[in-house]
Parts: sequence; structure tokens; C-alpha cells
Amino acid sequence: MDMQSTVEEIVATVRPLLRRGDVASYIPGLANVSPDKFGMCVAMSDGEVFGAGDWHTQFSIQSISKVFSLALVMSYDYDSIWRRVSREPSGSAFNSMVQLEADQGIPRNPFINAGALVVTDRLLTLTGDAAHSIRGLLRSESGNPSVDVDRAVAASEAQHGHRNAAMAHFLASYGNLENPVELVMENYFDQCALEISTEDLAKASLFLARHGVSAGGTPFLSPNQSKRINAVMLTCGTYDAAGEFAYRVGLPGKSGVGGGIIAVVPGRCSVAVWGPSLGPNGNSVAGIAALDEFTTRTGWSIF
Amino acid sequence: MDMQSTVEEIVATVRPLLRRGDVASYIPGLANVSPDKFGMCVAMSDGEVFGAGDWHTQFSIQSISKVFSLALVMSYDYDSIWRRVSREPSGSAFNSMVQLEADQGIPRNPFINAGALVVTDRLLTLTGDAAHSIRGLLRSESGNPSVDVDRAVAASEAQHGHRNAAMAHFLASYGNLENPVELVMENYFDQCALEISTEDLAKASLFLARHGVSAGGTPFLSPNQSKRINAVMLTCGTYDAAGEFAYRVGLPGKSGVGGGIIAVVPGRCSVAVWGPSLGPNGNSVAGIAALDEFTTRTGWSIF
Amino acid sequence: MDMQSTVEEIVATVRPLLRRGDVASYIPGLANVSPDKFGMCVAMSDGEVFGAGDWHTQFSIQSISKVFSLALVMSYDYDSIWRRVSREPSGSAFNSMVQLEADQGIPRNPFINAGALVVTDRLLTLTGDAAHSIRGLLRSESGNPSVDVDRAVAASEAQHGHRNAAMAHFLASYGNLENPVELVMENYFDQCALEISTEDLAKASLFLARHGVSAGGTPFLSPNQSKRINAVMLTCGTYDAAGEFAYRVGLPGKSGVGGGIIAVVPGRCSVAVWGPSLGPNGNSVAGIAALDEFTTRTGWSIF
Amino acid sequence: MDMQSTVEEIVATVRPLLRRGDVASYIPGLANVSPDKFGMCVAMSDGEVFGAGDWHTQFSIQSISKVFSLALVMSYDYDSIWRRVSREPSGSAFNSMVQLEADQGIPRNPFINAGALVVTDRLLTLTGDAAHSIRGLLRSESGNPSVDVDRAVAASEAQHGHRNAAMAHFLASYGNLENPVELVMENYFDQCALEISTEDLAKASLFLARHGVSAGGTPFLSPNQSKRINAVMLTCGTYDAAGEFAYRVGLPGKSGVGGGIIAVVPGRCSVAVWGPSLGPNGNSVAGIAALDEFTTRTGWSIF
Repeated sequence: MDMQSTVEEIVATVRPLLRRGDVASYIPGLANVSPDKFGMCVAMSDGEVFGAGDWHTQFSIQSISKVFSLALVMSYDYDSIWRRVSREPSGSAFNSMVQLEADQGIPRNPFINAGALVVTDRLLTLTGDAAHSIRGLLRSESGNPSVDVDRAVAASEAQHGHRNAAMAHFLASYGNLENPVELVMENYFDQCALEISTEDLAKASLFLARHGVSAGGTPFLSPNQSKRINAVMLTCGTYDAAGEFAYRVGLPGKSGVGGGIIAVVPGRCSVAVWGPSLGPNGNSVAGIAALDEFTTRTGWSIF
Repeated sequence: MDMQSTVEEIVATVRPLLRRGDVASYIPGLANVSPDKFGMCVAMSDGEVFGAGDWHTQFSIQSISKVFSLALVMSYDYDSIWRRVSREPSGSAFNSMVQLEADQGIPRNPFINAGALVVTDRLLTLTGDAAHSIRGLLRSESGNPSVDVDRAVAASEAQHGHRNAAMAHFLASYGNLENPVELVMENYFDQCALEISTEDLAKASLFLARHGVSAGGTPFLSPNQSKRINAVMLTCGTYDAAGEFAYRVGLPGKSGVGGGIIAVVPGRCSVAVWGPSLGPNGNSVAGIAALDEFTTRTGWSIF
Repeated sequence: MDMQSTVEEIVATVRPLLRRGDVASYIPGLANVSPDKFGMCVAMSDGEVFGAGDWHTQFSIQSISKVFSLALVMSYDYDSIWRRVSREPSGSAFNSMVQLEADQGIPRNPFINAGALVVTDRLLTLTGDAAHSIRGLLRSESGNPSVDVDRAVAASEAQHGHRNAAMAHFLASYGNLENPVELVMENYFDQCALEISTEDLAKASLFLARHGVSAGGTPFLSPNQSKRINAVMLTCGTYDAAGEFAYRVGLPGKSGVGGGIIAVVPGRCSVAVWGPSLGPNGNSVAGIAALDEFTTRTGWSIF
Repeated sequence: MDMQSTVEEIVATVRPLLRRGDVASYIPGLANVSPDKFGMCVAMSDGEVFGAGDWHTQFSIQSISKVFSLALVMSYDYDSIWRRVSREPSGSAFNSMVQLEADQGIPRNPFINAGALVVTDRLLTLTGDAAHSIRGLLRSESGNPSVDVDRAVAASEAQHGHRNAAMAHFLASYGNLENPVELVMENYFDQCALEISTEDLAKASLFLARHGVSAGGTPFLSPNQSKRINAVMLTCGTYDAAGEFAYRVGLPGKSGVGGGIIAVVPGRCSVAVWGPSLGPNGNSVAGIAALDEFTTRTGWSIF
């Protein structure tokens, strides 16, 4: 198989889908992105990189940042985060408060917003600056020192952040935040507003395909921790379409409303795709189609 | 690795856990099983079989039968079952009606009871006798022609089946049953009352590790269908502990309240374990511990 | 005030509303009723009766029968029914199973279907024939010995009764039925299929305006029991529009999908209205408008 | 009937219940109140007042303030508040977010916290200072110019107010607040921290028994508005025990976690009771018993 051709063909194949769905519109920084963009990058575990389309263009990382905050917390603190957040699929919309109430302030998993706030809160306690730590991880793993927060997007998020503020206060009412609500919110909005390209994102995710080994060759996570993050991505990484994603793509993956998705083939490679138009569950329509095509062509489903 | 020793050591390791949790008690046929039983069998894709403990003892297959009914329906009818049942994790208890109501009679997945009733109903239409077809599949794949329904258990299920009857009538009220409620119930209770040993169960599940190829060497499912059933097992196979199971075990699996669990290592082997005492989510406590130990020792997690 | 003129004027006033909403269509016996029918009758506590429109025409009593089954059970058994059913408003659609599950098989109140099934079950135990007892009460209180079950409607209800059957099996699964599901269903469908006119219905409800005193002048219920049934009607009598009904009409009332509604002015009179077209919550649109008009004109709101 | 003796006897009767239940403990200002206090006052529509026990002792008005904020909004703005809040019983715990989410940011009624925040927000827009307006109404209707906010309680509420802050941000996320979250919260905490005695509270509630006529003899609300507030109190005034309250007491009423309850006998009198120990639904145990006794002795149930 010629991976470069494969990636190019996939990008060509999904191009007709780019205007299916809708670009996220709740903040200007996302609403103004052209739906005609599409990028894809495959980073092999040996370091080789293959890309096509707008694979060098930066976009808003949004919820994909939750994988990196979780990895950082686990790297510092092994397993204790699981006392404050579960790891079960949520079975309902990604920003729902219903289950949070039923479960007494323990979010169902670290990838719904409530759970991500708890992870960010923990990272804040561990490092003093959660968003800064995540930026540092993305920079060192991608090898690109210019990865940074889009200040306009972060400010917009804060302005339109009533729903996340509600969630944070709700968590605080159950005693499940260690830091002041405002500080957690600020870090959370910053981490979601990080800008990155599919190339840098694929590279930065590679430790999950290399059993925890970082770009520098040293262990960032243990093999066990890396496997477990992949397991959580598979069951919870694409909001309430996780079952559909496992069925069609068959890889651990995590999406964001900026239109990006990462997927991991354990032992082989990581993949990043980006297409701004989202389907009803908040995942990139063309991005999922590209990953579906990818496992069909390579046969690299984990199943 | 010496698989026979591995299996024996695992069985020895989990023995102290056998009385953790509770044996299912809603019908006599299950309640009277000794909690001290434990069996485990690994069936390799080349046909070799390794077992230890009570691996030849028969037990009630219960919900594990749902994998075989789904496989049969897909073998006859490719993909059309997904118009009548979703494939998302349920995020709530395995016998809940709440989501069925919210989703207008479309069960969340084929492994919760409501979804399994729909699959059995479809199989009944396709073959004229759903339980008979499932028994046939188990017999031919295990090579054991004496696999059969435990009539006493089936009768008890029917007697204590108000909750399932409620579910079936509820599905019927949404027009999501093709056959009379009573007939669907009868077939469903029969399929759950099939008796089987871990040896026969591991063998009968092997087609999921062999990309759909049956014991006789002919394709029973396409590789794609086999992968997809594995994906549904991973996200939905262990009630509302699917996230936990993926995190700890890292394999597609399906459990039943009889205490059995099957797990699949795609391309390599299938595993069946059986320990009657169940944890709070209805999965065998010792069975899950054995599978956790199995992936730790073999390194065969899919992540 | 001239009550006869008042009733005639109200009937004239609501006539333009008769085609607002939709006639219940789930069974032919209800679907075939003309939406242009409207009847109203006021029965004073001294026995005088005032009517207008189609006030002698019979219609299907449906859920209004639940008031009479509850009254009968309380007459035999004082207060013990409240161990098996609560008396709180349900806050959700009238046939929902969600709350029944959350409340472990104890229905929220005796006027949602689940609660009414429990009341009918109890009445069946107490009298041996629930529907027969309710018919007897309607006959003796209305003075009309020809009140009877519409057999065609009862048969249709049974044929389309999957949702109620689901509810009954669900109650049985929690041990909250004393009689076989089939027998409870049969009685329930019969009681809902009783045919009655607004004249007979207003007369039959009069004991609730007379502190429990029957048509014959003897106590059927104690004053306290009568008050309490009125309280349950006010908070729970019109499905999830009970707050709206209290706000607009300000009287205890109970509606049915046949288009009938009864209302009680304690110490003064009972009122029955009938208009087949139903609003989104299953209550007669013209019927509610007529009762609103009635309290506005008479000033007889309880508030 | 000698009302003074009646009130004294009721207070004596409920005294053994004073330590049943628990004093609200989430803020010091409430937790430090002695459970042995009990006061009761009946204010007749002609102005006469009867009291017993600690009827002159001040306590925290808490949720009873919601009746006065609603009355003020209706006095300025007739009926438009009902576009932003419903008037149906909630059927679940008083501070639940579940229904708010299901109903797209429209609270079920003005007496659950979410609904009260919307009412306070509206009053803030109408008057510029919601808490100040409510204090003014209580002062003018009770004739006691020293009714005021307990600053320590208001500060504590703010400190422990994460749950209410969550609700306010949640409402804001649906566009159902007109003023900044912080300003609405401040007014809400202030109105809940108003201190008042049963004497002043009974007098201040009298307009609801006098068809809207104020203490000064001029109309504050129309008779229709007064009736409608009573209707909302009956169906929604005591959290998710409204059905029970209607059944046992049979009067419109509103409770607060400070242990106070008001009840209205339309056309006759208003009643205020106060006992700090609360039952499982957040209502004063002795207070409800006293009101039950009151309607039993006087026969003044509205049913």
C-alpha cells in the first residue's frame, strides 16, 4: 500500500461531502470558517508523515484538547482522576446535565463537557496552569513551538459560555471542583481555543499509537495508560455517536466542534482529519467518512 | 507463552473472588447454581482449545445468546435490522424503558433486552423459529449436537417475565414487532434458556475472531459484518459497564446473567469464562477479573 | 343568575371552537364521532338539572371512569389504596413509563393510566368485577339503569391496548397487581368503554359536590373522602395540563379522551361537558373553554 | 368557633412534632435556628388577627418570597410572565435541572428555583430593584416598616449558591434572563433572606384572601389575578409534595426552607405557620400538621 496515494484518494473521495451538515455557529471564530476546507494527515509510528488537502491549515482544536488534558493528568497522577469522573458512555447529548444530576455530580466520562471541566480542574491543581500545560504538550509532541491559543476564539467562548458556566457551578455544588469556577472556566476556554493543523495534531497524538512513548522517545504514559485512554476514546470519544463511530470506523477517536477528529491505530499510526461541517451529533461529516474510508482501504480496524 | 498454563493460572488467580457478588436469583434455575463453579476456555483461530476449571460444565447462556441471534439476522439480511434498532451504548440499566420511550420505540442497541426482542422478532420472521435457529448455530459451530434448551429455565423465565412482556408490548405499541407478542416472548425465553459449556461457547464464538469464517471453513458472515458485531459488543456488550469493560479488559465481549462472558481477540482467538456470582451491573465478577488477567498476561488488548 | 340561560349561552359561545384540536383516532369507536357535537349539563346539589346542546347524547366515558373506580375503592377500603399509588401530579405525559420506573412501580397518582390500573385491580379484588361495579355506581347515581359498556369500543381498546398491556406487565413486575394481567386489562377496557350522556354524568358526579352523599340521600363517602378525591382531581385530573386547568377554570375536574370533562363546585353543583376535539394534552378544547366561561360567569372558582 | 382558642390548641397539638425532620443546614443562618420554635397566626379578611406560640419571632422567608415577587410582576405586567415560565407542577425535586433542559429553558412553574429566578429577573427589569420591591410590599401589607433583609443570611446564600448560579447560567444559555446573571442572583439571594414573623407574613398575604385588595383597601391585583396566584400555589406551592398538601390541607399554600408556610382561605383569611424542622420534601413538618389541623377544625378546605 502506498500511504501517500491512499491519503490523497481519500481526500478526493470525501470532497463532495464537504457541504453536508453545518459549520458550528455559536461563536464567530468558528462560524466564519469555510466549509470547503478539508485536510488529512497520517503519522506513522516510525515518524513518517503523509498528508493531503489543507493539512497544514490551522483550525480550532476544541474538544480534541480533552484527550491531551486527560493524558497529562494521568501522567502526573496515575489513576486518581477516576474517583471524580466515570468512564461510561453517556447515552445522551454531549452537554446534558441530566446525567450529572442523576449521578450526584460525577460526570459519566472525561470527554463530555462536565467531565472535561473536572479534568481541567485537576490539571490546574497539578500544574498551576492547565491550558499552558496542554499547549506545552502539543508543542513538544508536534515539534511545532508556535502552537497557541486563538485569543479571539477564547474570548468568544467565554462570552457565550453560559452553558459551561452552569455545568461548572453545578459541579461545584457537588464539591467536584478544587479551584474557583472562574479560573477553571478560563483554562477550559483557553484549551478549547488552541489552534493546530492536522499535521501537528496527528504528530501530537502519536504517543497513543506508540504505547505511551513520546516524540522524544521517552515514556510519557505507561503502555497500560495509553491503552486505557484509547479505550475511553473508543467508547466515549464522539459524543452520543460513539457506537456508530466504532461500527463504521472501528478505531479509537475523538472529535471536536471545530471539525477536527483524531483516530489511533494502536502500534501503527495516528490520523487527524479536519472538515468544518458537522452532522447532527457534532462530528465532522466528511471527517468521519474519511476515517471510514481509511479503515476500509487499510484494513486497520481494531476489530 | 504456554496458553494451557496461562489459562490454569488465571483460573487459580480468580478463585478467591468466586463468592464476591450475588448469583442471579429471579428464577430457581439460576438461583440454584453453586457460586463456587468457575470455568474458562480459549479457542484459538487454528482450532486448538485450552481450558481449565469447570470448563465442560453447562450453564445458562442467557444474554450471550443475543450475539448469535444478531449474527444470524445479519447473515440473512445484511444490514436492514439497523432500521429497527440503534447501535449506541444505552448509558442506563440494561432493562430500562426510559430510553425506549424517548427514542419512540427504537431500542438503543441489540444487546439490551428491548433490542434483543426486536432481533429475535426479525429472526422469527426470517426463519420461522428463532430459538431453533440459534440452537442450530451453536450446535454446528461448537460441533456439539446436544446443545439444547433447558425447559425448566425457559418455563421459569416465562413465569417471571412480566418485565420482558412489558417491553414487548411497548415495542408493539410503536409498531416495532412483526410477530405476535406471545410468540416473540416464547422464542426469546427459549434462546436465553439454552445450556452450554465454556468449551462449546468459545468454539461457537470463534467465527467472530476469524472474520466471519464458520467452523466448517465457509463464510458465515463477511469480514465487515464480523468486525461490526465486534464493535457493537465492545460498546454495548456488558450493559452499562461497557466503558469499564473496555478500560479494564480491552476486548469486545458479551455477558449474561447466567455468569458467562465471551470475549474476542480479532484474528487470534475467542475466550469464554463462567462464574455465577454477578456484580452490580449484572456481569460475572470473577469472569471479568479473569478476562482482565488474560489481556494483561497475553498483551492481546485491541488498544 | 338564571342557570338555564347561562348554560345555553356558554354552549353558544364555545360552538366556534368545536373543530379546534383533533378527535381521538386510535380506535374506530372514538374516531367516528362528529366533532360538531357539544353538550353541557349542570346538576345542582338540590337535584335541579340544567342542560344545553347534545346533553342527552351518549359518549365514551374513558378516563373519567377513573374517578368512579377510585371513589368505589375508597368507599370499601378507606385509605389503603394509597400504599400502592401516590397522589402527586405526574409532570409528564399521561401514559409515561418513565416515572413508574423511577418510583419502583408506584404510579404517581390514580388518574394516570398506570395508577388507574392499580385502582381497577384493587376494585376487582374487593368486588370480583370492577367494570360491573363502576357501571352499577353510574346507574344508581344517575338514575339511568341503561348505562352500559359499548362492546365495540371495549373490543377496539383491547386490540389497540399494547401500551396499557405494557404498563400492566410493568406493574406486575414490581408486584403491584393482585390479579392476572389479562383480567385487569379486561376490566379496565370495559370501564373506559362505558357510554354515558352529560346529563347522567353530571348527576353521577354529584356526590362529590355533596360531601359524599349519594343520590339516594345516604352517605356513599365520608365528607373527608369526598374532599380528598376533589383535591386529587384538582392536582392530577387533566393529565399534564392540571396546572393550566386550575389556573383557568379553578375547579376540581377530570377529563377523558372521549371528549368529556366533569368539574365539581363543592357544596353547589357538578358540571359535565362534552366536545370530541382534543387539545395537545388530551383534554376537550371546547370543554375546557366552557368550564372557563362557567367559572367566569358564576364566580364559582374555589380560589 | 373561637379562633383564638383554635389557634392556641393547634399550637399545643403540634408541639410534640417539633423535632421531627431536620432544620435546613446548608447555611449557618438557617442551621442555627432552634427546632423548638413554633408560631402560628391567622389574619381574618376583616383585619382581626389571632396568634399563638412564637408568632412574633422573625425567621427567614426563603421561598415564600416567590409568591410576593410573582404578585408584583403580575401587578405591573398582567400576564406576560407566562411566556417565560409555565404553571404546571414539576413532578420532581424542587431544584432539578432535568425538566429545565427537557423544556428548553422554560421553567415548569414560578415556584421552583428556576422559575423564581425568571420572575425575579422580570421584576428587576420592571422596577430596577427586585428585592427592594418585595421588601416594600411586605412592609406596606404587614404595616411593619422594619421588615428587612438579614445580611448575614444573604451573604451565606451567595457563598453556597453554586446550584442557583448553575440554574441562572442555564437559563441565560436559553436566553431566558434579561439581566446579568450576577445581578439576578444578588436580588434573588436578598429576597430569600428577608426576615419576617408569622404575624407580619399572615397580614402580608391577606390580599390573596381578599381577591387582590391591599391592606390599604385599594386593589393591588384584580380578583382574577388573585385567584390565579392561589391556583398556582395549590398545584405548585409545596415542591413535589403539592398533591399531598392539597389532599391533607386542601388550601393554596407556599412553603420555604426557613420553616414557614402560608395558606389562603379565599374570602376568609390567611394563615402563616413556622416550625424550622423540615420533612423530606423541604416543608415544615409541624407547619403542615398545623394547617391540616386548621382545616379539619374549621372545615375551611376549598374542596
